[in-house]
Order: sequence, then structure tokens, then C-alpha cells
Amino acid sequence: MDPISFAAATMLEPGTAAGQFTARVSPDWTIGGKPNGGYLLAMLGRAAVAIGTHPHVLAASAHYLHSPEPGPVTIDAETLRAGRSASQVRARMVQDGQPCVEALFTTSLLEAGTKPHWDAGMPRPGSSPRQDCLRLPGHAPNGLAVTIMDQVDLRLEAATAGFAAGRPAGLGELRGWLELLGDEPFDPIALLYAVDALPPATFDIEMTGWVPTLQLNVYVRALPVPGPVQLTQTAQLIEGGLVDEDCFVWDSDGRLVAQSTQLAGIRLP
Amino acid sequence: MDPISFAAATMLEPGTAAGQFTARVSPDWTIGGKPNGGYLLAMLGRAAVAIGTHPHVLAASAHYLHSPEPGPVTIDAETLRAGRSASQVRARMVQDGQPCVEALFTTSLLEAGTKPHWDAGMPRPGSSPRQDCLRLPGHAPNGLAVTIMDQVDLRLEAATAGFAAGRPAGLGELRGWLELLGDEPFDPIALLYAVDALPPATFDIEMTGWVPTLQLNVYVRALPVPGPVQLTQTAQLIEGGLVDEDCFVWDSDGRLVAQSTQLAGIRLP
Repeated sequence: MDPISFAAATMLEPGTAAGQFTARVSPDWTIGGKPNGGYLLAMLGRAAVAIGTHPHVLAASAHYLHSPEPGPVTIDAETLRAGRSASQVRARMVQDGQPCVEALFTTSLLEAGTKPHWDAGMPRPGSSPRQDCLRLPGHAPNGLAVTIMDQVDLRLEAATAGFAAGRPAGLGELRGWLELLGDEPFDPIALLYAVDALPPATFDIEMTGWVPTLQLNVYVRALPVPGPVQLTQTAQLIEGGLVDEDCFVWDSDGRLVAQSTQLAGIRLP
Repeated sequence: MDPISFAAATMLEPGTAAGQFTARVSPDWTIGGKPNGGYLLAMLGRAAVAIGTHPHVLAASAHYLHSPEPGPVTIDAETLRAGRSASQVRARMVQDGQPCVEALFTTSLLEAGTKPHWDAGMPRPGSSPRQDCLRLPGHAPNGLAVTIMDQVDLRLEAATAGFAAGRPAGLGELRGWLELLGDEPFDPIALLYAVDALPPATFDIEMTGWVPTLQLNVYVRALPVPGPVQLTQTAQLIEGGLVDEDCFVWDSDGRLVAQSTQLAGIRLP
């Protein structure tokens, strides 16, 4: 079967009302039958940009209410403020009358070719060349079907892939490379998915079931050049059944293009 | 003049419709006449908890549309989903018909006495005892009136306070202690303010004017014990007129109780 491109998996059709869209959550972009949180945020981001006057998502904040099933959904987007240099938009995804995700966006124009003015304390991209990394298969070590891995090329550095063989490094960090198939380039919308593309960084500590994203916050910092992106995801603190994870995304020029923080539920064995 | 307590500065009155509240942005909780972004988020958080069935804010995401003037505002809160273990609420602040801040909240019950299960890579609290730190006065080095400093006791470690004398350390990190006056204890709502209480961490790199918060994302990780909290705020990347800053908050037992990320505008000299 041909892969379902990111563009096709996040395609919106105009709905019946202003700011309304219909879309289809793809069964081929799921983990254990559940759509990826970043993938859903990307669909909302597409709606946010479609109704606005600014072309790029700068900041996106999603709160997850209910995981939709693969199939049709409705997206409603509303401009909260249309400004000169930035605008704010609210978008929500509903399935069968049930709200699934609500998100706020700040949109703007990201200029090509900006340069970091100052930078400190950021993680650095992993050092393993892409060809030395291990591509993740369509099944997780715990047996879960991960259909999304047949639609993208996601590779982990060997040093952080020990969990797949039952030997997590214990550092709570995963590093790797992500490529959309068919040379599909990353844009700010695709970066909203990229920040949530890696398996939970907690797998590098201990293997658990699904680590559902409760909240995901993303900043797009620059326009990526074409090519695969490098990802590093780090768990910081597990407490009270919750974990926070940071993700950083660099383009193939080694430039930081996106960063995120998420809060996820974790059921310890 | 007696200080205006945090409870008084964030007090809500029931409005005319369900989920509606009126409040007053205090002129005494401002920086250069502008209310602090975390203070505004705390007011919205109070509304989110007031209409829901869960007592604590777990995650809060605010997008700032327009800075309100000190004076009356209206807050509208709506439950997006009322769940068993967590709920989601949207809240917005409007002044004279103009939307100022919109935020999404995930609320839950934070159990007292939880313990970290795993923790790595987090910053650690600063090491200077509170009595050795320098209390910030009601005026910034650039002459701006910071009335909020008369309502709280915010102290910086000497090593990170060099900017006030024109000698920033160049690390983009501020560390200090925050206490509410009159022994007012921190609760999860007050932590929404605490994460934004420090001056911009960019002051430790170069002095600029106002660094307005565009987006603020907060996770409350645990219930704080009574007493002052310790704060560390770090700038990561300045690019394209924007900076992201992380803040971590520890209670007086040294326990991480809140963490945040914000995206702010910065106008370089």
C-alpha cells in the first residue's frame, strides 16, 4: 500500500459555516489505534492558518479532551485577534458531537534566513549520522501496532534505542531523525507533528503502555530547509502519574526550528 | 500604603451570566503600567477552578492578545469537558469589549505528599540563602516603575543581579526567591503568577525595554508547602525578535512545584 502523505493525512475540506472544516483522521497515522497528538494539532494548525492572514504558526497550545477514532471530524476555527505582526486563533476538533482537542495559536510571518542572535543552554542535536540510526518498525516492543511508522521514516540513535531490546539507557532521552516520505518537505504545520513524533522518552527509563499526551505546547522558531529533521526528546520529572517531556527539532542545516513541552499521563508498572 | 495581597489582587466577583466573573486588574501589580502576564493568567485560573469540579490547575496555556489597563475586566469561563480525574476549561479576559487574554486549562486534584518517581536533567534551585539575595525595588534599572515589587518580596541572587548595575553575567539566567507578603501561602493559582514573577532572563544578556509575553505555558507539578519559593528563569534562544524562557519553581522544601515556558517579544537595541 502506498504511504499516506502528511499533506493528505491532514487535508481539510471547507465545512458549511465560516471557519468550519471537515477532515478525516487517518487510520494509518495511529499508535495502537490512537491518532498521534502532534498529528491532531497539525490538523488544527492548518485550520488556524487557513482562516487567518498570517501564514505561519508561531506558538500552539493544545489540551486533549478525548482521543478521536480514525474517521471524519469537524474543525471549527475562530480568529480571536487579527493583528498586524501576529494574530491569535482558537481551533477545536469535534467527532460525533464530542469535543476532542482544543488549541490556541499565535500566527505570524516567519522570515526565511533569520539567524540566532543569542543561544545558550539548548540541547544539541544527536551526533549519529542518519544512516547509522535504526528505523522504527510498525510495531512497538510491547506489541502495539504503530501504523504511523509506515507513513514516515523515523530513526533512533542506537544509543537511545535500547528500550526496544528491553535495555533502556535510563537517561530518559531519545534522539533520532524524522523524514516524511516522498521528499515531502517540513513546514511549520508539519513541525507541529514532528515535536510529538518520537516514542515517549520515558521508554528510555521504563517500558509502560500508552503515555497519552494531556497538553502539548509548541514554538516554531524558524522555517526549516528541505530534508529530514533531527529530534531530541527528554523526560524531566515523573511524579503523581504525570511526566513532562521536552522536544527540540533541528533542520538538516542543524538549525533549531521547533521546540515543545508536553505533559503526559504515565501508568507505572 | 498597605500592600495589596495576591488574593485581593486576583479576587473575582460573580458576573451576570453562568461562568462569568468580574475582576479588577490592580494598578499596584504592574510593570511600567502593564499588568504582569502571570498575574493575568492567575485571574483566569481562578475562574477556571471556580466553575469546575477539580480544585487545582494542572496545566495552563495563555495566549496574550492585548494588554489590559489597570481597572475592571470581565472573565468568561467555559467547561470544555468535565472528566473524572481531569477536566478542561477555557477562560478569557475582556476589557471594554476587547479580548485581552485567552487561556486553556486542564484541572485535576493534586494529592499532597506525592514524591518524584524519576527526575533527570532538571535545573536545580539556586544555592544562595534568601537573606543573602537582593530584594528588587519598585523601579527597574531602566527607570520603569514596577509597582508589583511593593506587593511581593522578590530577591535575586547577587551573581545574577549584575544587570541592575549594567554588568549582566551574559548567561541568560536569573535565580531568586519570591515571597507573598503577610505570610500568604502559595497555592497552584499563585504559582501561575510565580513562574512569570522574575524580570526577563534576557536582562542577564543585554538590557532592553519591555519583553512582552506572547504565550505562557505552565505545569503545576505538586502542592507547595507554606513559605517562600525559589525561582530560576533561563533564556534559551533569541531569534527573529523572539525569545523563549523556561522557569522552574521550588517550594521551601526544595521540591519542584511548577515549571513554565514562555515566548516573548524582544526589541534589541
